[in-house]
Amino acid sequence: MSAAEILRTHPRPPIADVAVLAACIDECATCSTICTICADASAAEDDVREMVRCIRLCLDCADACTATGRALSRQTDPDPDTQLAALDACLAACRASAAECERHASHHEHCRLCAEECRRCERACDELRAALR
Amino acid sequence: MSAAEILRTHPRPPIADVAVLAACIDECATCSTICTICADASAAEDDVREMVRCIRLCLDCADACTATGRALSRQTDPDPDTQLAALDACLAACRASAAECERHASHHEHCRLCAEECRRCERACDELRAALR
Amino acid sequence: MSAAEILRTHPRPPIADVAVLAACIDECATCSTICTICADASAAEDDVREMVRCIRLCLDCADACTATGRALSRQTDPDPDTQLAALDACLAACRASAAECERHASHHEHCRLCAEECRRCERACDELRAALR
Amino acid sequence: MSAAEILRTHPRPPIADVAVLAACIDECATCSTICTICADASAAEDDVREMVRCIRLCLDCADACTATGRALSRQTDPDPDTQLAALDACLAACRASAAECERHASHHEHCRLCAEECRRCERACDELRAALR
Repeated sequence: MSAAEILRTHPRPPIADVAVLAACIDECATCSTICTICADASAAEDDVREMVRCIRLCLDCADACTATGRALSRQTDPDPDTQLAALDACLAACRASAAECERHASHHEHCRLCAEECRRCERACDELRAALR
Repeated sequence: MSAAEILRTHPRPPIADVAVLAACIDECATCSTICTICADASAAEDDVREMVRCIRLCLDCADACTATGRALSRQTDPDPDTQLAALDACLAACRASAAECERHASHHEHCRLCAEECRRCERACDELRAALR
Repeated sequence: MSAAEILRTHPRPPIADVAVLAACIDECATCSTICTICADASAAEDDVREMVRCIRLCLDCADACTATGRALSRQTDPDPDTQLAALDACLAACRASAAECERHASHHEHCRLCAEECRRCERACDELRAALR
Repeated sequence: MSAAEILRTHPRPPIADVAVLAACIDECATCSTICTICADASAAEDDVREMVRCIRLCLDCADACTATGRALSRQTDPDPDTQLAALDACLAACRASAAECERHASHHEHCRLCAEECRRCERACDELRAALR
């Protein structure tokens, strides 16, 4: 089930176009999962000592995506500053995690997939940021 | 992106059949989002005084799904007791939230959708629980 | 146990003066708890219809505090943009939640206490923000 | 601020003796922080390859403590099965994390402190479990 379906039944008007908003909420949920798996897979690699920064940034990204996805899921009496700052926190975390995973994409397939997902979430956050204004 | 795709690139063997495991991880992520939206939508309803139990149980369910989805995402050196207890916590939360949302399904469409999602997550947890044994 | 005690045993240098850093991490943990309780207490009040904005902003604040406290707890290979954006997300959420709870402080004691805690967390984030530069 | 102070202002009766309940909520918050720091410190150690199980179990424990602390913070219309299962998930995670950290306590001071905190949280959960019955 996409967030779009249930957002359309919410008694309050959505904070942005439902398709753009739901895409961002859905990507936050997916990116949190993918980053959690990538951090764990990286810890299990033989070259874990080279993966320490990746582990750290994927954990930051999973936490930012979880918190931001939750804040954006709420349509009731939002605080614009809080929502914008949440989006920016998610954007920064996705960018850092994507950049680090891209460095390992050629030798760790989970990093290639994780970088892809972080960039997708980054784009969804960027699009929602523009749609909020 | 489903968790299945990245789990297949993990250096450790998965804790269960990847399709069953990934279905559970994906439903935990979705159910956490849907419950967060249902709690917020319920708070915005005119009959919010009748929705207080729904708000509370949806928040519990979102938190349980987030924590359980994360624990199940990790394949490295798992502790069987911790994973089983995490699944049971998610199952209990999904059941309680589904039962309460079902009571409101006829007058609040978000509760109907949320109950459906909680039951789907409950089934995915049940199936993974059987696959772990 | 304060975060300060274990941060002093971390193999990497802390991202800021340990006392300032630990104060912020500890306040994030406390503020997340207090906001979770205030949201729940507000839902149980007779005037819940007047408390809907308070519930929503306290939930945002609990989520932001959890994610930010986790990111700040990590000293290994930090990304400066991610940490600054996390702090700003927490600051915005604390300010919004404090301002709303202050409006209810005279008739709901939990809001008075929650506003106090949100302001304390806001100050701790502000002080860490200055110490990071 | 302890959870006890604000729990005493909640309009609903607490699910257990406030001192026992607040001790458990406070330890969940502290244990989540300490485990997050221990996982990160372990990733930064020279012997990180020996610390992979510790990293993983500390992350599980941080997630379980966060979710359980939140569920226990709510006094409004609780579901007994959900609360008991949340406590059991936290207990299992604390036990596993404590046992692993105890193995590293002599050579990593952060593991010694983390094991201590996990045992403290385990006791607080055990005491609340008895007080709920």
